[in-house]
Amino acid sequence: MKILAVNVNTTASMTRSIGAAARSVARDDTQIIELTPAVGADSVEGNFESYLAAVAVMDAVITYDGDFDAVILAGFGEHGKEGLMELLDVPVVDITEAAAHIAMLLGYRYSVVTTLDRAVPLIEDRLLSFGLQEHCASVRSTGLGVLELEDADRAAQAIILQARQAVEQDRAEVIVLGCGGMAGLDERLTQELGVPVVDGVTSAVVLAESLAALGASTSKSRTYAPPRPKRISGWPLSVRHSAQQ
Amino acid sequence: MKILAVNVNTTASMTRSIGAAARSVARDDTQIIELTPAVGADSVEGNFESYLAAVAVMDAVITYDGDFDAVILAGFGEHGKEGLMELLDVPVVDITEAAAHIAMLLGYRYSVVTTLDRAVPLIEDRLLSFGLQEHCASVRSTGLGVLELEDADRAAQAIILQARQAVEQDRAEVIVLGCGGMAGLDERLTQELGVPVVDGVTSAVVLAESLAALGASTSKSRTYAPPRPKRISGWPLSVRHSAQQ
Amino acid sequence: MKILAVNVNTTASMTRSIGAAARSVARDDTQIIELTPAVGADSVEGNFESYLAAVAVMDAVITYDGDFDAVILAGFGEHGKEGLMELLDVPVVDITEAAAHIAMLLGYRYSVVTTLDRAVPLIEDRLLSFGLQEHCASVRSTGLGVLELEDADRAAQAIILQARQAVEQDRAEVIVLGCGGMAGLDERLTQELGVPVVDGVTSAVVLAESLAALGASTSKSRTYAPPRPKRISGWPLSVRHSAQQ
Amino acid sequence: MKILAVNVNTTASMTRSIGAAARSVARDDTQIIELTPAVGADSVEGNFESYLAAVAVMDAVITYDGDFDAVILAGFGEHGKEGLMELLDVPVVDITEAAAHIAMLLGYRYSVVTTLDRAVPLIEDRLLSFGLQEHCASVRSTGLGVLELEDADRAAQAIILQARQAVEQDRAEVIVLGCGGMAGLDERLTQELGVPVVDGVTSAVVLAESLAALGASTSKSRTYAPPRPKRISGWPLSVRHSAQQ
Amino acid sequence: MKILAVNVNTTASMTRSIGAAARSVARDDTQIIELTPAVGADSVEGNFESYLAAVAVMDAVITYDGDFDAVILAGFGEHGKEGLMELLDVPVVDITEAAAHIAMLLGYRYSVVTTLDRAVPLIEDRLLSFGLQEHCASVRSTGLGVLELEDADRAAQAIILQARQAVEQDRAEVIVLGCGGMAGLDERLTQELGVPVVDGVTSAVVLAESLAALGASTSKSRTYAPPRPKRISGWPLSVRHSAQQ
Amino acid sequence: MKILAVNVNTTASMTRSIGAAARSVARDDTQIIELTPAVGADSVEGNFESYLAAVAVMDAVITYDGDFDAVILAGFGEHGKEGLMELLDVPVVDITEAAAHIAMLLGYRYSVVTTLDRAVPLIEDRLLSFGLQEHCASVRSTGLGVLELEDADRAAQAIILQARQAVEQDRAEVIVLGCGGMAGLDERLTQELGVPVVDGVTSAVVLAESLAALGASTSKSRTYAPPRPKRISGWPLSVRHSAQQ
Repeated sequence: MKILAVNVNTTASMTRSIGAAARSVARDDTQIIELTPAVGADSVEGNFESYLAAVAVMDAVITYDGDFDAVILAGFGEHGKEGLMELLDVPVVDITEAAAHIAMLLGYRYSVVTTLDRAVPLIEDRLLSFGLQEHCASVRSTGLGVLELEDADRAAQAIILQARQAVEQDRAEVIVLGCGGMAGLDERLTQELGVPVVDGVTSAVVLAESLAALGASTSKSRTYAPPRPKRISGWPLSVRHSAQQ
Repeated sequence: MKILAVNVNTTASMTRSIGAAARSVARDDTQIIELTPAVGADSVEGNFESYLAAVAVMDAVITYDGDFDAVILAGFGEHGKEGLMELLDVPVVDITEAAAHIAMLLGYRYSVVTTLDRAVPLIEDRLLSFGLQEHCASVRSTGLGVLELEDADRAAQAIILQARQAVEQDRAEVIVLGCGGMAGLDERLTQELGVPVVDGVTSAVVLAESLAALGASTSKSRTYAPPRPKRISGWPLSVRHSAQQ
Repeated sequence: MKILAVNVNTTASMTRSIGAAARSVARDDTQIIELTPAVGADSVEGNFESYLAAVAVMDAVITYDGDFDAVILAGFGEHGKEGLMELLDVPVVDITEAAAHIAMLLGYRYSVVTTLDRAVPLIEDRLLSFGLQEHCASVRSTGLGVLELEDADRAAQAIILQARQAVEQDRAEVIVLGCGGMAGLDERLTQELGVPVVDGVTSAVVLAESLAALGASTSKSRTYAPPRPKRISGWPLSVRHSAQQ
Repeated sequence: MKILAVNVNTTASMTRSIGAAARSVARDDTQIIELTPAVGADSVEGNFESYLAAVAVMDAVITYDGDFDAVILAGFGEHGKEGLMELLDVPVVDITEAAAHIAMLLGYRYSVVTTLDRAVPLIEDRLLSFGLQEHCASVRSTGLGVLELEDADRAAQAIILQARQAVEQDRAEVIVLGCGGMAGLDERLTQELGVPVVDGVTSAVVLAESLAALGASTSKSRTYAPPRPKRISGWPLSVRHSAQQ
Repeated sequence: MKILAVNVNTTASMTRSIGAAARSVARDDTQIIELTPAVGADSVEGNFESYLAAVAVMDAVITYDGDFDAVILAGFGEHGKEGLMELLDVPVVDITEAAAHIAMLLGYRYSVVTTLDRAVPLIEDRLLSFGLQEHCASVRSTGLGVLELEDADRAAQAIILQARQAVEQDRAEVIVLGCGGMAGLDERLTQELGVPVVDGVTSAVVLAESLAALGASTSKSRTYAPPRPKRISGWPLSVRHSAQQ
Repeated sequence: MKILAVNVNTTASMTRSIGAAARSVARDDTQIIELTPAVGADSVEGNFESYLAAVAVMDAVITYDGDFDAVILAGFGEHGKEGLMELLDVPVVDITEAAAHIAMLLGYRYSVVTTLDRAVPLIEDRLLSFGLQEHCASVRSTGLGVLELEDADRAAQAIILQARQAVEQDRAEVIVLGCGGMAGLDERLTQELGVPVVDGVTSAVVLAESLAALGASTSKSRTYAPPRPKRISGWPLSVRHSAQQ
């Protein structure tokens, strides 16, 4: 199968990390296609940027010239998944929900460790919206910005500090890495922390493959029915964007 | 004070209705400035269009050339408010939350009557996100699309049917009009139904005036702190849009 | 419009403070009428006193000899609002709910800072009953009794201490002053704390004015329908009280 | 032990029914002392009357000239229990909570069948406040006023109708009689309905006896600590009331 | 009446302690019959052992050769109560729910103090399942295993430490002893802590007596209907067990 | 990988159906090993039988003479998963949770259609315990017993009837087949209903494969830590069972 792995920001190096993480768990016959939006912020760390990313991602996907069997949305706590589900028939798996689903299969409670303090309410709100908050022990922040995660050692240290507190104080039994930019750290951190550490990108890949194996696709009965035909101005964004440059 | 009343769709006649409703309750010294986004759908009835509207609204507001003291976001159940709150210091009042706040002051439980069935989960999800769902008895749909509401009699009839059921079966004591396009029907329906009928646009105006009277503005401490400075591609949208045409 | 601002205790100096706070935000054409109950405790700090206040307030309002367009109930976390709503057609706004509504418009989560530890469960219970608890981060107590608040500096210091902890530990983004006796401190504390500080009395005034501007009044369909005619002994209380003295 | 069984209304015949129900299950060495408030409505069917009853009951209890080991508060969904718990050291058992506790021991979900439609939100709110709402399948009303219950056959018929619907539609497994005036009907209805029917008065008696057997009394650590000493005007009510007549 | 007091583990000395605690509060005409399962662990401290205990308890009860009027299930947070309720017509009272019901009658919030850390989620989950979690402030562990509780002084010290923190930090007003093996410590701890301390075994006895006084038995309408007749292999367990030895 | 697919009842034909369903979605290199418990009921339809099944399944798994990489527990709404997770290091996936996780990825709300009315509370309770109930629109019963499902046409008709109502009245967007005995019907029903129909067995297989692909195993930090070493009587069950025969 072909999976579109869509970054939510415009930083191409992060898209490559996401792709690499995705490939590390994908089946042999799964092809991971990386996609970077043409529009939006180079790192997404709040609601404004997240809403822009939602639209940029929808834009990137519907203007992608090729076929695919599933989409992975690689923003943690970010908006947009519901829009993409309306536009597509194939499954769309958000890394936030994916990581929470996997974490709930591995232990009684999980905590999310994310980047900045301001991302915490976004993530809490998305988990609430997905109906996955009941076994979330806490969402904790490292204080590192998205792009600061590229220093893997510094990122690992900051994550370990918060994860330890989550396990001891919040009684988490599983740790979820709360940023697409943390992809690749899960194995190392699982060993250091002694509890399962779940990464959203890899979780989303295996869940997308799972849906494919089941022959399942998004319900079109109500919430995710296709948009009704209507006049839309300025859409898609990237057509105009490339035209303009 | 000056209030920006921003439509979420690109239908100018609806913007004018919103403006008229807003003016009908505004203080004498309040100026209502209507704003229609340059980008997006002519009616917003689902997640894709709503996410696009979120960005279109942010775009319209930040490229608006003038000063203002508050923004009213005239989409019911639509996304975007959190992004605008980050971008602005002045209060942003969404008509969904506004109507719910006012309804909760008038009776023990309220029901929302909205347009299409597919809008129901969006509205429920927004109320959940705003923490205003506890006293919501139900969200009911009339089956009418947004633009069909322009036939006021037909709209009133369809709303009355659902509102009666909400009062009798769901034990609602207040009815909320769940679409910006229903603005102007509240008085008539209050009389016909015998329970308070709340419109979001007028509710948002008086709440925006309330915040102004209190000298209050959005907390900038965490969730709605200004975006960090960073490189953003293709933003604002409308600059490119108008440039392109 | 005329707003009855009713104290819940019998301390006249506190009634005057409440009146002053109310006037500080009221529209020019709004008249604030202060009312002190004839019956009850000089400060209300628990359930017994609160229940007595509920009845004393209803008594004071229905024996008030004059007309009015709305009532503000100036007890934080105290009982009684629902009874008054049955007795009156005009809006009744409780300062607890008023402050919570306003706080939710200004930030993602709010904390309440109140007087004694024993008031905390009362306030939590009222917020739960109003359906406004979902975005309440915490209710914290200063340890000061109601009448100790008259020393404004001491009160401010104690409130700041708890408010800081609410912001840092409980992730509150807005602080609500959880006692009618704290009226007047909001502006000063907003400056010192750097987050919006909301006072219930001023919030209730602007919300009462909002309801008036909307032409809205309490739903009479079920919960707040007028009491059925029946024989009531010893009511109103104050008639007997004054007769007896 | 001596149990004060306090009616919440001023109808002496109802007090006697409550007393009779209480005695029907009390241990041989338990003495039931009936108490009727001097102040308040002859039937309590809403918030105004309920708040007045709360104070009237506190008044009746603290001016009762005799000793007792527990108090049963015979109002279903009515206010006041928390105030009485502050004033007394001995246990106070409200019939609403008592019936819910017993019902939860007998089946997975219970429904309450009460009098008027307007009592439903009061009962729901009290169950919420007591933390007993999770297994409540529904609160249903018969449409009969409190005093209409004195026609036992009519009351039984109306209750059976609602109880059947609760069992079949709401999946209740236990029925709670939601009014002190329904005392005495439980045995008959249990037989007719084929599911346990729980009465609040008898439930409260056995729970009060249970607490006595355990040597347990109300926690005085925070919520129910005794009121602080202070000046209270017009209290107790009944002293003035009798003085005045 | 005759109450079967069933231990969940196979340690006979603990069964005797449970019996003694039960007798200390039982009515004169109540007979406590101790029962120890033939199968299972000598102490139950996790899910595997708890599930085994559930079956062992059902086995012990249905193979008990004698009549009885109620069963007390003396495992705190353990599984099995629902199964026993299907098999029997007489009431089954679990000490976890019993203690929570009693605690909720004595104060606004209660905390449970239990044995090992790993028991905490079990207890939380059972309270959730019973619908009794809303007023639970916290479940805290002493770190002592079930059998270590036989040293009463050490147990008391460890419990007091956690209970103090529950009262001060979690705002508990009542403490629940979260293990059948803590039976007998409630009186001593109530005195030392100054808040009511509730034991599950004694609570269950008085509640079982309460249900008997009400003539109430388990609803057989749905969840706890008798098992349908069917072929069951290897049941009852103890028949085989004794046959085998 | 090798997956143990464990039936919860002793009906071998049902085990074979479960195995067949499992194999229909498994990867080529996944081996499905069917396991039928030696102890328990031939169909599990209530709490007693479910608790017995929990122990019978643990027994069957730990006495299984062979290696395996994951376990699928094929009882819908049944107990036991937590016990097995303590006993094993490899992942244990319950079909109830598996189906709910998959359903939540495919639509906004799902309904479960199960066998008998009495199974409904069990399933609701398990979803609550797993933290997966928030997006569950309803659990509906067909009225068919587990073994009656072997008539596939009758089963399909009964399921379709309830599923239609779930979609129209409860606003479900995805249907979950709420019984291991319904395995194999999902594809046919998806076509007839026009919404995704999810089967637990196939869902559990792909999730078990997902966890394997991630290299993830159960957290051993608290809830699912291995049982402490202790004396256990009569365990394992099947050893005695076979010895006895």
